[in-house]
Amino acid sequence: MVDADIQPDVAQLQELLDGRWARVRQLARDELRGPLFTPVPERGTEEHRDRVSAQLAALAGTELVGYGFPATYGGSDDVGASVVAFEMLVCDLSLMVKMGVQWGLFGGALHALGTEHHHRTYLPQVVSGQLLGCFAMTETGHGSDVQRLRTTAEYDAATEEFVVHTPDDDARKDYIGNAARDGRMAVVFAQLHTRGEEHGVHALLVPLRDEHGHPRPGVRIEDCGRKFGLNGVDNGRIWFDRVRVPRAALLDRYGQVAADGTYSSPIASRNRRFFTMLGTLVRGRISVAGGALNATQAALSIAVRYAETRRQGERAPGEEEVPLLDYRTHQRRLLPALARTYALRFAQEELVRALYDSAHVQTLNDHDQRELEARAAGIKAVATWHATRTIQTCREACGGAGYLAANRLPQLMADTEVFTTFEGDNTVLMQLVTKGLLTDYRQEFGELDPIGMARFVAGQFFGAVIERTAARSVIERLVDAAPGRSESSGVHDRGWHLRLLEDRERHMVDGLARRLRRAGSGRAAFEEFNNTQDHILAAARAHIDRVVLEAFVAAIERCTHDDTRTLLDLLCDLYVLSTIEEDRAWFLEHERLTTARAKAVKEGVNALCATLRPHARTLVDAFALPEEWLAAPIAVADGTGRAQEHSAVG
Amino acid sequence: MVDADIQPDVAQLQELLDGRWARVRQLARDELRGPLFTPVPERGTEEHRDRVSAQLAALAGTELVGYGFPATYGGSDDVGASVVAFEMLVCDLSLMVKMGVQWGLFGGALHALGTEHHHRTYLPQVVSGQLLGCFAMTETGHGSDVQRLRTTAEYDAATEEFVVHTPDDDARKDYIGNAARDGRMAVVFAQLHTRGEEHGVHALLVPLRDEHGHPRPGVRIEDCGRKFGLNGVDNGRIWFDRVRVPRAALLDRYGQVAADGTYSSPIASRNRRFFTMLGTLVRGRISVAGGALNATQAALSIAVRYAETRRQGERAPGEEEVPLLDYRTHQRRLLPALARTYALRFAQEELVRALYDSAHVQTLNDHDQRELEARAAGIKAVATWHATRTIQTCREACGGAGYLAANRLPQLMADTEVFTTFEGDNTVLMQLVTKGLLTDYRQEFGELDPIGMARFVAGQFFGAVIERTAARSVIERLVDAAPGRSESSGVHDRGWHLRLLEDRERHMVDGLARRLRRAGSGRAAFEEFNNTQDHILAAARAHIDRVVLEAFVAAIERCTHDDTRTLLDLLCDLYVLSTIEEDRAWFLEHERLTTARAKAVKEGVNALCATLRPHARTLVDAFALPEEWLAAPIAVADGTGRAQEHSAVG
Repeated sequence: MVDADIQPDVAQLQELLDGRWARVRQLARDELRGPLFTPVPERGTEEHRDRVSAQLAALAGTELVGYGFPATYGGSDDVGASVVAFEMLVCDLSLMVKMGVQWGLFGGALHALGTEHHHRTYLPQVVSGQLLGCFAMTETGHGSDVQRLRTTAEYDAATEEFVVHTPDDDARKDYIGNAARDGRMAVVFAQLHTRGEEHGVHALLVPLRDEHGHPRPGVRIEDCGRKFGLNGVDNGRIWFDRVRVPRAALLDRYGQVAADGTYSSPIASRNRRFFTMLGTLVRGRISVAGGALNATQAALSIAVRYAETRRQGERAPGEEEVPLLDYRTHQRRLLPALARTYALRFAQEELVRALYDSAHVQTLNDHDQRELEARAAGIKAVATWHATRTIQTCREACGGAGYLAANRLPQLMADTEVFTTFEGDNTVLMQLVTKGLLTDYRQEFGELDPIGMARFVAGQFFGAVIERTAARSVIERLVDAAPGRSESSGVHDRGWHLRLLEDRERHMVDGLARRLRRAGSGRAAFEEFNNTQDHILAAARAHIDRVVLEAFVAAIERCTHDDTRTLLDLLCDLYVLSTIEEDRAWFLEHERLTTARAKAVKEGVNALCATLRPHARTLVDAFALPEEWLAAPIAVADGTGRAQEHSAVG
Repeated sequence: MVDADIQPDVAQLQELLDGRWARVRQLARDELRGPLFTPVPERGTEEHRDRVSAQLAALAGTELVGYGFPATYGGSDDVGASVVAFEMLVCDLSLMVKMGVQWGLFGGALHALGTEHHHRTYLPQVVSGQLLGCFAMTETGHGSDVQRLRTTAEYDAATEEFVVHTPDDDARKDYIGNAARDGRMAVVFAQLHTRGEEHGVHALLVPLRDEHGHPRPGVRIEDCGRKFGLNGVDNGRIWFDRVRVPRAALLDRYGQVAADGTYSSPIASRNRRFFTMLGTLVRGRISVAGGALNATQAALSIAVRYAETRRQGERAPGEEEVPLLDYRTHQRRLLPALARTYALRFAQEELVRALYDSAHVQTLNDHDQRELEARAAGIKAVATWHATRTIQTCREACGGAGYLAANRLPQLMADTEVFTTFEGDNTVLMQLVTKGLLTDYRQEFGELDPIGMARFVAGQFFGAVIERTAARSVIERLVDAAPGRSESSGVHDRGWHLRLLEDRERHMVDGLARRLRRAGSGRAAFEEFNNTQDHILAAARAHIDRVVLEAFVAAIERCTHDDTRTLLDLLCDLYVLSTIEEDRAWFLEHERLTTARAKAVKEGVNALCATLRPHARTLVDAFALPEEWLAAPIAVADGTGRAQEHSAVG
């Protein structure tokens, strides 16, 4: 064990966490201050919506909203900055989501799927926030399975219009942000029909409300009403009753309809076209992962500060009581979660860089594009599950105080809980990850459904290939230097960690390929696919665990301050060992760990908790969340913060 | 595997679940109907409080509130019925908690700790709901550690009064239900001082508000404000500034102060006196466990119904889409949780019976009293953690629809989340369970703190004794008939299940005793105690898993309908195998399972999920929660329930 008597540098930690877009983070910290952006315990729905609308208007005046757009339209064409700006809006996650709907989804789809005339006509008002819009993809009957959406857009050559229609209640658009109150226009995803043929899902611009805010003829809108959280976002349902829009309403970058109704597309394969259009979702998923992590950071900041000041029980009679964080159970609750948060933070940094590079440095080939999409899906799922679990743990670790709205944890919990569902249900996304591992997709991209998956996999598979995503040469060196299965190393050998996680991933993917190859097709294939679902999820998890570890190693490489680097090394150990510990049944079953080694892993986690405990505050302070955003009286002010947390009654 | 082509009888299942107090459950189902009791998506705090106050007033007119009190005061002296009545109030958990505060905690403490003149003076108004009161135990600085409360009650012989005082903000009463708005009086727990001596925590009746609802002189009250959930309960903080109450205000069943200030008690040992007074908390903990289970049942009812109607993906091209519950991942999410809910339900039934018997059939000796307290603590912790995890899983399993307030899951989640904290923090309670396992407490009951624990255990320990809590002879027979470690049985052998869980418990407790005996005392003892915390929690969990299994076995014994019994047997298999699966690392590490056997357990869980899937609806229907209480449009009405779930806007 490394000597823990170290002096890590919080500024250096923050610099690493802030990453390439540190400037954007700092701007958010500086701009989003004062009464308008300070969290308030939630009131009624309409009141909250009003507040978020006011925040959104203020935000529209900053550069934070435009990063993703071309300079011509007031932006800086920096998709990385746009993701980072989104995730920083942790002062109110309703604002974060509403910002994402307006500039990320609505504006982003207009930009990515539309062409010059759409950009010219709408982007200036979209960027300035004058034109608020919706991203109408999800339907009541189909959410994560976008290919089966049932809203139709049929071309009428006689009038050169599309007729947008909701065939039944199952096909109504649902949970659409900005729909219940503010959206004046929507990007609507619908099955495109022209000249008697169906061309799959396309996006069209459909006006929803007139200048007085009334729904336009043929458009019916309902309010989704109160939700668990995010009540500052006006989610709604939309039905279209044969609504006519001009031919130019089709966002036609990847599919055009000529005046006579002839369909054409630069992408021949229908599947590939679909996935190209859905590529716009990648940014949304990466953003959601970042938002979940920022919320987790806020919760951990509150819980760690509280655990350092709140005392209970004594070491010896008459002594001062012991801070909660001195207890092993408390350390076990918070510190592995903190280590994983750092790990995911670094993985997120790699992901945003990869997204940026794909847009600005080098256009990705299909293989790399699919890799990026799979990784975005996996990090989104793992980060959002981590957020849900960790924020709940933080609440519980703060006892009754954690249950009070004033202490922010309830709002963070309620707001982020749906992150596991939106922008793609996590379970579905994890299946997408595994699918990516089973082939390199060079020839084809199968449908995102059981049958397609089984059919596809039955084709060719040449054994799992571990493709490293970060710090390739360093990792190569560490792996090569690691001892073999002889277990001669301690449990802190990074090469051993990397090998162990790679080995698990390879074994799972290989086994899965064998199972699916046996599957055949049709109903039998469905059953076999269904029976492998757990295996599929486990493989995805194993893959993401490994990718995250690589990102952590890469971050440590970037750290130049000795003691800080030592701290990060310890934290990385805790991430890996607690990850191994959680799945140690698998490692035991597959003889990757002896029982003695498994015990050493467990003891390693305990020892690391004790070693890192004195640095817990430094580790959360490096998140650099302004006190104003934390807001929780138990975390700010005098340590108890009691002066701020109440108002007299009676 | 048993043939699953069975016809279980839902009425028989319900009868088993309803248990000995079926009549009370049915009365609650019949009485709590109509607009006043139908769940509504939450509005503002004051509005919610008003609604709950109105519900409480209506409830006060029924026999549901009085069961726990003597017949003289309108009750039936049936503590079992009072617990069951509480847990049935799942139509609004704020009502459940407020009812518990008024009649369970406030009225219950008056009854249990007071004497004749207190009963005569106050109980009639308490039972009728005319006098609303608080149970002022928890302080900001000390919650689960009641012995360290710092509010003082000092006897002044000159005026024959007690002076109740809050020395500082850390000692203010906090999170007190009924305090912010409605409570007119409180049972206040304070350190009793008389004639210069300190006698530990005692309870006194202190008036809080005058007839106009204004705080009385010296009493300061603040509103805790908005909380995550339970916003229909008016939690508050209370400070006492040398508030004088007459000598008769002391609830003096276990400790009396004479006019001249002489202290006397029927219980010589101070510690024992303390734990006797705290015995009143047992009922509260059992009630909370029951409430958590009812909320879990509601969530599972909603999620299972949704999973049967919501479809996604197809088995073969052109076929109807597949209900979510046909997917293994979905079964894995819901069905083991459903099995565990049944298991805990039966354990709860045993516990309530034991509580009833302790009051009515046979006064318990100290050993049995401690056993009951430990079991209540353990079931409370396990049931409330189970509720938090399961309701969240249900939300996620219902996707976006689950996030809407109209579908009830958000409210169930937010309301029950604090159950892991109140009536004793779960982590602390689990330590209490293990402590109970380490000795029979016949000689002494150590303090509930690290030092006391270590010091105590260092004394004597003669090896873990497995004491069976239900269906003793049946279990004996099953265990005896089970094959040994030869693994010759299938994974469905009940005797093997029982032996495996007993064996784990015994091994953990023995190991723990050895570790603690080495610990010594003072600071070193604290460190050793701290280092064993995980072990302590694991032992408690192992104990409760085993006790719960015994209760399940006992319930199956009570079942007389063949096919229903078969179904319960399968469900019990799922409970055990998923429990073993979760902790299979331990079983592997300790050579209680071979890797082949561990794999068989996992496959057993999968197979049971498939076998039980067709009966999922029957299993939730047997909970017999009125449709009105479920309320969720996705669970009631036409299966999609869409007609009810929205209101038009715009």
